[in-house]
Amino acid sequence: MGAGGSYRIVGMETHDVRFPTSRELDGSDAMNPDPDYSAAYVVLRTDDGFEGHGFAFTIGRGNDVQTAAIGALRPYVIGRDAEDLGALYREMVYDSQLRWLGPEKGVMHMAISAVVNALWDLKARRAGKPVWLLLSEMPPEEIVALIDFRYLSDALTPGQALEILKKAEKGKARRIARLRADGYPAYTTSPGWLGYPDDKLRRLCREALDQGFGQIKLKVGADLADDVRRLKAAREVCGPDFPIAIDANQRWDVGTAIAWVTALKPYAPHWVEEPTSPDDVLGHAAIAEGVSPVPIATGEHVQNRIIFKQLLQAGAISYLQIDAARVGGLPENLAILLLAARFGVPVCPHAGGVGLCELVQHLAMFDYVAVSGTMDGRVIEYVDHLHEHFTDPVVIENGRYRAPAAPGFSAAMHAESVAAHTYPGGAVWRDA
Amino acid sequence: MGAGGSYRIVGMETHDVRFPTSRELDGSDAMNPDPDYSAAYVVLRTDDGFEGHGFAFTIGRGNDVQTAAIGALRPYVIGRDAEDLGALYREMVYDSQLRWLGPEKGVMHMAISAVVNALWDLKARRAGKPVWLLLSEMPPEEIVALIDFRYLSDALTPGQALEILKKAEKGKARRIARLRADGYPAYTTSPGWLGYPDDKLRRLCREALDQGFGQIKLKVGADLADDVRRLKAAREVCGPDFPIAIDANQRWDVGTAIAWVTALKPYAPHWVEEPTSPDDVLGHAAIAEGVSPVPIATGEHVQNRIIFKQLLQAGAISYLQIDAARVGGLPENLAILLLAARFGVPVCPHAGGVGLCELVQHLAMFDYVAVSGTMDGRVIEYVDHLHEHFTDPVVIENGRYRAPAAPGFSAAMHAESVAAHTYPGGAVWRDA
Repeated sequence: MGAGGSYRIVGMETHDVRFPTSRELDGSDAMNPDPDYSAAYVVLRTDDGFEGHGFAFTIGRGNDVQTAAIGALRPYVIGRDAEDLGALYREMVYDSQLRWLGPEKGVMHMAISAVVNALWDLKARRAGKPVWLLLSEMPPEEIVALIDFRYLSDALTPGQALEILKKAEKGKARRIARLRADGYPAYTTSPGWLGYPDDKLRRLCREALDQGFGQIKLKVGADLADDVRRLKAAREVCGPDFPIAIDANQRWDVGTAIAWVTALKPYAPHWVEEPTSPDDVLGHAAIAEGVSPVPIATGEHVQNRIIFKQLLQAGAISYLQIDAARVGGLPENLAILLLAARFGVPVCPHAGGVGLCELVQHLAMFDYVAVSGTMDGRVIEYVDHLHEHFTDPVVIENGRYRAPAAPGFSAAMHAESVAAHTYPGGAVWRDA
Repeated sequence: MGAGGSYRIVGMETHDVRFPTSRELDGSDAMNPDPDYSAAYVVLRTDDGFEGHGFAFTIGRGNDVQTAAIGALRPYVIGRDAEDLGALYREMVYDSQLRWLGPEKGVMHMAISAVVNALWDLKARRAGKPVWLLLSEMPPEEIVALIDFRYLSDALTPGQALEILKKAEKGKARRIARLRADGYPAYTTSPGWLGYPDDKLRRLCREALDQGFGQIKLKVGADLADDVRRLKAAREVCGPDFPIAIDANQRWDVGTAIAWVTALKPYAPHWVEEPTSPDDVLGHAAIAEGVSPVPIATGEHVQNRIIFKQLLQAGAISYLQIDAARVGGLPENLAILLLAARFGVPVCPHAGGVGLCELVQHLAMFDYVAVSGTMDGRVIEYVDHLHEHFTDPVVIENGRYRAPAAPGFSAAMHAESVAAHTYPGGAVWRDA
């Protein structure tokens, strides 16, 4: 242990972990027909015996590059005081040389996300609290100090952020108690993958209703006639008022999106997700206008807070979908939650993949307790994949996420899972 | 050689090449105080004995990650018909698994850029022509077929692109002759680096005038009083009507940019470059309105054609600055040149770094011959760094780029330069 109660990071391991999900067509959509869900996984160790786990999620090829990018951050982390979170974050994001590889986007930014989230996992484990609670108990001033407001001040200032957080102070204890008692609403994408035949879709819709989910989502965008048939089938099973969102995974140009969604309007989609490129703020705004009143949602591939800011400024989205492992980790997601609150747009996190449900539940729960103060109109995505590989997997009861109680960010995988799925040498790949 | 005159790529080497430019404060600006100009460098070899060279430019740390990302593209390239350029481009950009690492941005997109540009270098070498001429002699239909119009159709359709190119057919031969005789206008950033003292700034301004440059550029954004003093000094040396651009390298938020540029207005900046984040389309539009009539320029860090499209749609920029090695290589830059032409915005390429002048001159010259048809209001950036390491370095005469005559994309470095600057084992680094 270092001086003055500080503790130092003395070890960092990276692992290229891949799951052969393409063998089952799980996770297939219009842009991603054959994903092998993967994690570029990092473990930090301190001189007082704690660990922090984090990862970037990818869908297979390139996970080696992503793992190498995390490895390139080793010099920023080893030997550092692990409580010095704010400084570490800024040093990585603003390293003048590394910054050229983004800035703040793509492989290098996702690498920073993995390390930063691992630092938060570490901090919460050492504090003996789940991340959502650790954050929820922080004073508003400390939360604001964690956030990088660069490029945000035309939409959100530190003073405005503080005001939002202070307003939410009232009722915090009651909301923490409610969260522990009732959990947070989930929706499921499990019925809707493109690779599934219609009878499987119908069966999975019924199962989703039986399991108490309050919303489902269908992948669309490969073939319009198929989408009409599948959405109609889901609507028949779920009834006229049940929220059924659709997700095009960036498949369309602006004009195509408007025409396609217009054709699906009779089946009342709850939202249209990723209608076009995640980079196209003005495109999303044009689609929103063109398909009104169908709401637009996006975010899982939005690279950073600057694009989210613009999506909100342009009135382009009605639901904001944070992803826990793409932007620069937890602190950048705090900025995004506060931007959403400032614009009055509900946050409905993206999840699924490997461990994204585990991570992102903490952010949504913090949002409920300490930012937006409400769960109305909010749901966390849930996909029933790969949770068995995590030491503190999400728990879904009656269509809701239980509030995690274990210390940390729920980010740690079982060592045996990591070993078996390491690419290409692990047992799962060696034997394939 | 393959069947039917095709030729196959049988070799691919990558090199992590770094120049210790930070030792001299060359290239210092408000966001990049100590760059070590670097290239993640790739060499392709064919079964008929030709080579293609390409690279991603970085500024030091992380060049290993960038080199690894290029290496990850090996399976897409080895054994392939090197004339199958369009298919190769699409396979890399739309590989459903790799795409998750962007999409179309950051390290993975720059890696694709390096390989795609190397394929074009190869094609031009084999054709015995410089890239600018090879492209300029292609029929408009072939150019259009090279372009990926996905996410562009709300601003530029294939039909509109064809129309622009067909209109420029007239007078092509005359423009090729003029280019060969007179070259293309350049501007120089050499006087304006932040690390230089004022007397050096003044001396370099005078030298720029003496050398025949028609424009210079100063870095700004670290300290307002310094910037006022430096811009005043440059204005005194260059006279009231000489174009002096300023470049903030993304330093400001929207409000700061407007205030800062307003303070510099008395010195009549020719353009303000990168006033804020390259991701902030709406921010650039707000700044353009706030500092009018001072023109806004950006592009060297713009990640892809989709952001450029929006900058044009929003009327956010008066000059569009392509970079040859950041977006997905030559074909994506063709899309961007055509977008600029459609919106009537002049293209003034970013250059400098390692080999960016060498590459981008070909694109600007193609723009003159076959797209915009004019050099009016257009200049290519020129920085007098590191050209000696290239086998076909740019030639500047009387402030203008000579049209390259050697076959290829001017992308090849001397083998000895690559060896000496390989990081960390090369002589330059080993001895440091």
